[in-house]
Amino acid sequence: MTRNPFQAPEVASRRGGPAKDPLSRELIVTTALTLLRREGSAGMSLRKVAAALDTGPASLYAYVENLQELQALVLDRALADVHTDAGHGQRWQRRITELLLSYREVLCATPGLAGIAMTTIAVGPNALRITETLLGHLDKGGLDRATAAWAVDLLTLYVTAVAAEHSQRDADTLGPVARAIGAVSAEEYPRIFAAREDILMGPGRVSWALDVLLKGIVQTPRGHRRRSAEHG
Amino acid sequence: MTRNPFQAPEVASRRGGPAKDPLSRELIVTTALTLLRREGSAGMSLRKVAAALDTGPASLYAYVENLQELQALVLDRALADVHTDAGHGQRWQRRITELLLSYREVLCATPGLAGIAMTTIAVGPNALRITETLLGHLDKGGLDRATAAWAVDLLTLYVTAVAAEHSQRDADTLGPVARAIGAVSAEEYPRIFAAREDILMGPGRVSWALDVLLKGIVQTPRGHRRRSAEHG
Repeated sequence: MTRNPFQAPEVASRRGGPAKDPLSRELIVTTALTLLRREGSAGMSLRKVAAALDTGPASLYAYVENLQELQALVLDRALADVHTDAGHGQRWQRRITELLLSYREVLCATPGLAGIAMTTIAVGPNALRITETLLGHLDKGGLDRATAAWAVDLLTLYVTAVAAEHSQRDADTLGPVARAIGAVSAEEYPRIFAAREDILMGPGRVSWALDVLLKGIVQTPRGHRRRSAEHG
Repeated sequence: MTRNPFQAPEVASRRGGPAKDPLSRELIVTTALTLLRREGSAGMSLRKVAAALDTGPASLYAYVENLQELQALVLDRALADVHTDAGHGQRWQRRITELLLSYREVLCATPGLAGIAMTTIAVGPNALRITETLLGHLDKGGLDRATAAWAVDLLTLYVTAVAAEHSQRDADTLGPVARAIGAVSAEEYPRIFAAREDILMGPGRVSWALDVLLKGIVQTPRGHRRRSAEHG
């Protein structure tokens, strides 16, 4: 990705007429997101997007440079659904948690999107809106700017990874984990054997992890704290 | 993955003779790992592994069921290099950090391996050895078993995600982030603008995050603490 696709100029289509909508980056991104929702990441190739638009892949290149750029545009389009005003009126930790759970929900709602988020640099307008909001909440919590910058990265990376892991390890693959962990020898792996039920227990795991992260972040300042009274 | 590949019986090859080594799961895994190290994840298809072994993909299916099973075997083979005795004689937090940094180094040393780790259920003997060791360190730290079980998951997921992100965002793609963040409007995104240098600053990020995680974990017990004096 050598250019910023969010700042690339829109291109005027040379086709059009009554039968087809004129091509536009907007239409390409909408079509790609629809394909992703319907078929998962395998459905979102430039070839398939072109076919869905009744054109050839070559005509897409006037609008998006490559698959990576299309993925960045599609990710940001999907991130428009993240509630950055979540938890209004509540404490800063709660607001961060609510926003991140909304982010996670958006990633999990579209198969393949979390995988794209893991490998795409999120710098579109919706990603920036999320980052700006999180920085604001962390500032409310009295965190210095350097700590807040890394905290946003850590929090969003964790939630993205959980969503990516979740999308890969579906019903089909959870069985083998349970079988493998359940079959562990008590002699060879006594701690895993003793903890096997806890290891497999899922509900509440993400909320617990976000609690861990927020408590840890408050106690690991990189710079000077501004309002030490708020998080002694 | 419907069977546990680590418990699948070894198969005796029907070929052999002076020209070729006899096929074995061992040889297939070694060859796949070599291809992965040389060519990244695109190099590790069943077809390419078969070609490197001078045979057809069909003959591999007697030894590995599919690509997913091969990836699980290759991941565990690579994890043999993780130093589970790292930080011997030091405090439990330091031992966990050293082990995880070794795990990260192993993932980053082979292109594509972190991506495989993100989407593969690590239940091979080396993965189990890592989990068993981490549970031991957390026990030394006085954490209850339920907390320790989720802590292992959180710590390894974070390190896996960082390694996967790192392997995707190479020198070629770091430029655009810097440009995008550097081009952010101070009016539209004042906090991102103010924090732009901190956001881009990388060195020390993982050590900081592991500090955050360990401090947060100690303070977010799920069950009863056993030795509260150790982590008050």
